[in-house]
Amino acid sequence: LTELEMAYLPNLDNLATYSICGMIDMVAPGITPGSAPGHLALFGYDPEDSLIGRGILEALGIDFDLKKGDVAARGNFCTIDNNGLITDRRAGRLVTEKNTELCKLLDGQEIDGVKIIVKPVKDHRLVIVLRGEGLSASLSDTDPQRLGEKPLEAVSYEAKADKTATIIAKFNKRVADILNRQSTANMVLLRGFSILPNHPSMKEVYKLKTAAIASYPMYRGLAKVVGMNVLDAGETLEAGIETIKNNFDKYDFFFIHFKATDAAGEDGDFNRKVAALEEVDDAIGGLLNLKPQVIIVTGDHSTPSVLSGHGWHTVPVMLHSKYCRPDDVKAFNEKECIKGGLGRMAAINIMPLALANAFKLRKFGA
Amino acid sequence: LTELEMAYLPNLDNLATYSICGMIDMVAPGITPGSAPGHLALFGYDPEDSLIGRGILEALGIDFDLKKGDVAARGNFCTIDNNGLITDRRAGRLVTEKNTELCKLLDGQEIDGVKIIVKPVKDHRLVIVLRGEGLSASLSDTDPQRLGEKPLEAVSYEAKADKTATIIAKFNKRVADILNRQSTANMVLLRGFSILPNHPSMKEVYKLKTAAIASYPMYRGLAKVVGMNVLDAGETLEAGIETIKNNFDKYDFFFIHFKATDAAGEDGDFNRKVAALEEVDDAIGGLLNLKPQVIIVTGDHSTPSVLSGHGWHTVPVMLHSKYCRPDDVKAFNEKECIKGGLGRMAAINIMPLALANAFKLRKFGA
Repeated sequence: LTELEMAYLPNLDNLATYSICGMIDMVAPGITPGSAPGHLALFGYDPEDSLIGRGILEALGIDFDLKKGDVAARGNFCTIDNNGLITDRRAGRLVTEKNTELCKLLDGQEIDGVKIIVKPVKDHRLVIVLRGEGLSASLSDTDPQRLGEKPLEAVSYEAKADKTATIIAKFNKRVADILNRQSTANMVLLRGFSILPNHPSMKEVYKLKTAAIASYPMYRGLAKVVGMNVLDAGETLEAGIETIKNNFDKYDFFFIHFKATDAAGEDGDFNRKVAALEEVDDAIGGLLNLKPQVIIVTGDHSTPSVLSGHGWHTVPVMLHSKYCRPDDVKAFNEKECIKGGLGRMAAINIMPLALANAFKLRKFGA
Repeated sequence: LTELEMAYLPNLDNLATYSICGMIDMVAPGITPGSAPGHLALFGYDPEDSLIGRGILEALGIDFDLKKGDVAARGNFCTIDNNGLITDRRAGRLVTEKNTELCKLLDGQEIDGVKIIVKPVKDHRLVIVLRGEGLSASLSDTDPQRLGEKPLEAVSYEAKADKTATIIAKFNKRVADILNRQSTANMVLLRGFSILPNHPSMKEVYKLKTAAIASYPMYRGLAKVVGMNVLDAGETLEAGIETIKNNFDKYDFFFIHFKATDAAGEDGDFNRKVAALEEVDDAIGGLLNLKPQVIIVTGDHSTPSVLSGHGWHTVPVMLHSKYCRPDDVKAFNEKECIKGGLGRMAAINIMPLALANAFKLRKFGA
């Protein structure tokens, strides 16, 4: 049995009885999606045309206010020895307070007219953002992702990125000088240089006022990429639902993200994932009480605890509205949902279906 | 009931219980596939972009070592009367020994600097291969496919095929002269001029070492087109499985073809097809004993005995691996598989799923 099949989900099963159910492919059959393509597909964006760089995701996730043209990269504080060779890629998983302190030493420099912003994320992780004219993200990582090697030069993939590569080289030199006297971490490794993707917002595509509730940085970031207004909603599912309740009349669409199921799956903890699913089941009544025109319950990818990671498997989905035309499915899980009225389909079809059920789409043709 | 539904298949049904099942469209709904597009779809090649000419298939099927640039055509020995009109398109289904003898008379000629190789296939069927510079397969058949007519001229469809058309005209004249004194067959009809398709191999596409086991020429040929190593494996299913066993560590992927189900269907013989399916059921344990990481059971098209030929119907498929996430299906047949976890999907998705289940694919996106 899967975790969904094992969990006791009386409220979700009851909702399934009044919903149309199915199984969705996030990207394509056999493809294991990262969270970014998984979410973008759910929001109706072709995940293969919508790749988001890791630097951008990390910056958005700390609520950093990115501007068009900014180049962002993820960073790790690391330790190098006297010969410049990496001895710990994570500097002993630095505590966030120390990280914050070190970032302040590096933040706010200007090199060749470009401002360099350095912000802590969590543990040993940080973000750098280059802001100025004529930048490009078309360059390689400085993180060799191996111990015993020197940090790499960021190599430009095209001439237009030469300036950026030069700035990164100068920055790395300064970082080495500034952190020289630090014992906890004396260098930074950079990965995933990227710029904001040029997605039209959900407002532009769907004419919807959209809001997002997510306690984890990455999902807040993803919501911002498609133009959602990220609400301040605390950490718990109950607080998130309360926030939706308090803002219910201000938006046309709410995205609420729940992390605990995925986290338990990533940890390979079957029982904790079952418990997390039952937590969702307990809370779902709070959303239904708001009587949304349309409610959709699904995931952005499978995370079977047997894999301790994301999977390629299709994902159950249910859509409830007054006009959804329920099927025979009476339990919200993988074995039942595949027998549902939606069959198996691509995840990007979810948004058009949601819009249809809310009477937001016109008839096609005469 | 279909033949699969009628057959007693305890081992396949048991495997289905531990598999994820579904129904696949080989090319597109309503389209009856030939064996070539059916197999290519299973191997992950878009069957609409991967058409293989019949001449090439026939040449590959007799293990003829085709070279890039070769033009191949299927041939029939036939009989014509004194007026040159066809009286038997198959020359009384010539015995293969006579065919071989006649091919020797025609083989090895050179016309306009192009070598013409003539090889027997079976009964009245032969292959001709033109080898030389500046050839093209863009020309029409010489077989009118009707009695009482003269063999046709091969007409070039484009200027670049003019040379080849001229060579075929000269060749046909020589054939008529050489076979003039033969009573059993006095002419050859040609069809399906074609060149080797430019497919990347499965090695190039999937980085897999692949092997094929098939007793029938055409399927060996298809396997070669995608770069599989065709193993010498005797005629029976048992011998084929024994060959897989003996080579199990040398390859990453095995394709084993079983012809008897299709042949019985083509002959409209329901009971023989049921018996052939039960033969597969008896043998499947030999494959499972090898403990493959992933095993897939399916067909390249339907051949319902009620049609005495290929059908357009979707085809059942089951995929078993430790991580496949089994569904509710407990019998391997059409009525059950459509309720399976794979739903209905295009056959080209099978290979990505197989690769995913063997952990051969990276995660897409962050």
